[in-house]
Amino acid sequence: MNYENEVLRTLCEAKSVRVYEDRPVEHEKLQMILNAAFHAPTAGNQMLYSIIHVTEPARKEKLAILCDNQSFIAKAPVVLVFVADQKRWTDTYRAAGCTPRKTGVGDMLLAISDTMIAAQNATIAAESLEIGCCYIGDILERCEEVTALLGLPELTIPVGMVVMGYPVRQQKERPKPVRFEGKYIVSENTYHTCSPDELREMYLTQKKANMAQHRQHKNPNSTSVSSPESAQEYSLDFASSVTAFWKRKYESEFSKEMNRSAAEYLKPYM
Amino acid sequence: MNYENEVLRTLCEAKSVRVYEDRPVEHEKLQMILNAAFHAPTAGNQMLYSIIHVTEPARKEKLAILCDNQSFIAKAPVVLVFVADQKRWTDTYRAAGCTPRKTGVGDMLLAISDTMIAAQNATIAAESLEIGCCYIGDILERCEEVTALLGLPELTIPVGMVVMGYPVRQQKERPKPVRFEGKYIVSENTYHTCSPDELREMYLTQKKANMAQHRQHKNPNSTSVSSPESAQEYSLDFASSVTAFWKRKYESEFSKEMNRSAAEYLKPYM
Repeated sequence: MNYENEVLRTLCEAKSVRVYEDRPVEHEKLQMILNAAFHAPTAGNQMLYSIIHVTEPARKEKLAILCDNQSFIAKAPVVLVFVADQKRWTDTYRAAGCTPRKTGVGDMLLAISDTMIAAQNATIAAESLEIGCCYIGDILERCEEVTALLGLPELTIPVGMVVMGYPVRQQKERPKPVRFEGKYIVSENTYHTCSPDELREMYLTQKKANMAQHRQHKNPNSTSVSSPESAQEYSLDFASSVTAFWKRKYESEFSKEMNRSAAEYLKPYM
Repeated sequence: MNYENEVLRTLCEAKSVRVYEDRPVEHEKLQMILNAAFHAPTAGNQMLYSIIHVTEPARKEKLAILCDNQSFIAKAPVVLVFVADQKRWTDTYRAAGCTPRKTGVGDMLLAISDTMIAAQNATIAAESLEIGCCYIGDILERCEEVTALLGLPELTIPVGMVVMGYPVRQQKERPKPVRFEGKYIVSENTYHTCSPDELREMYLTQKKANMAQHRQHKNPNSTSVSSPESAQEYSLDFASSVTAFWKRKYESEFSKEMNRSAAEYLKPYM
């Protein structure tokens, strides 16, 4: 694929990496990654986030369990938790003699935006240094235990987690999943509600593209458009394929726990 | 400044641009920017966002008013609203015959993360094409009118807005605000609560660095470390400087409105 420049290539070719070489990320490189995060756009130059670099093996193990038992988290050379933080500024106001009002959910959403923007700068910076990353959305789960594990005070919410390391060869070669086509994502002037037929088309077009890519990856010399193996692996029946995804993701225990936990985080601000 | 690569340079040197040349952003470049957004990391390859490209002049004017009367928004050649979207998938589940549970606030926070990660990819892509950007956090305000203006249905929240255009020379030359030092942002293993003295040091160190940078920009040949003009412009008294910022930002009408509006957006999911 041709890109206009190296930045676009990095943005478009970055993919999640979950298996790492057994070697550390160099201190200087981690500093470059953090520096890129600090330079992300931030509301009023406030940097409404904190970053916790989790290094203790026992704490990483615990975090891996709390994030839906994903053991690769504990094996990642770098684990960064991105925390939406209205505490630092509230404390600064107090230190200056101000009496700040109660923190609202708008303040927290603004901090969450700042936090994820900074996290993505870190991720792209890592990618540019050939370090692979994976976001762990599950950091939103099990608020009581995560709060205790990371010593999180009031006015902070751990909304992002990125684990990093040098990818093993298999991860480098793994194809990046095909996205939905842009026409289903972008609309002009007002929101476009997709019809059931459009959603079916959106889903199946992407599924077919991912199937073709998977076949090509497993057998680069093949020109065949179908194979019994892949037909087994990926059902093209819309209803059964979506239902399987729905059960695995939306109806999962981790998804219900994420909703419970996120509500606990937000309650104080509503 | 030396950077390890061009990606790091772009990430670290990007700054907000609010004044644009009177020329459009080329269609192909906008497509590259949107493509970079689509390729951002996304939970389970779901792309839990929609992007509304606002092009109608009257709608841009209205949006500028709703976003705390910032007229430069209407003048921006490109206006993109990034909408956290759980509707597309909920509708897909229904189209496939599933009966999805009620959308929770955890689902929405996950969508918000996806959305801001994609927005930041778009911003970095634009920057790599020499197109300047500015995030408009105020898109969270005035939910009733913004929802009507953009035709936003249930299960969507407009959490991010980025306006773009070619920067005028003054904007290119304007120095980027100095950030807080990393030692106040990053901690190891657990959250670090800064003491009042640390916060004072954090704030004043940054303020001095911004003052020095401002002087250097206005008078590149000066080697003096202070000038009466800058001393007037930037009070170095911690209490009065923070109090002025607090009144302008945290105690502002727009901040209170953002909290009211954000609570309205989130209520259905709590």
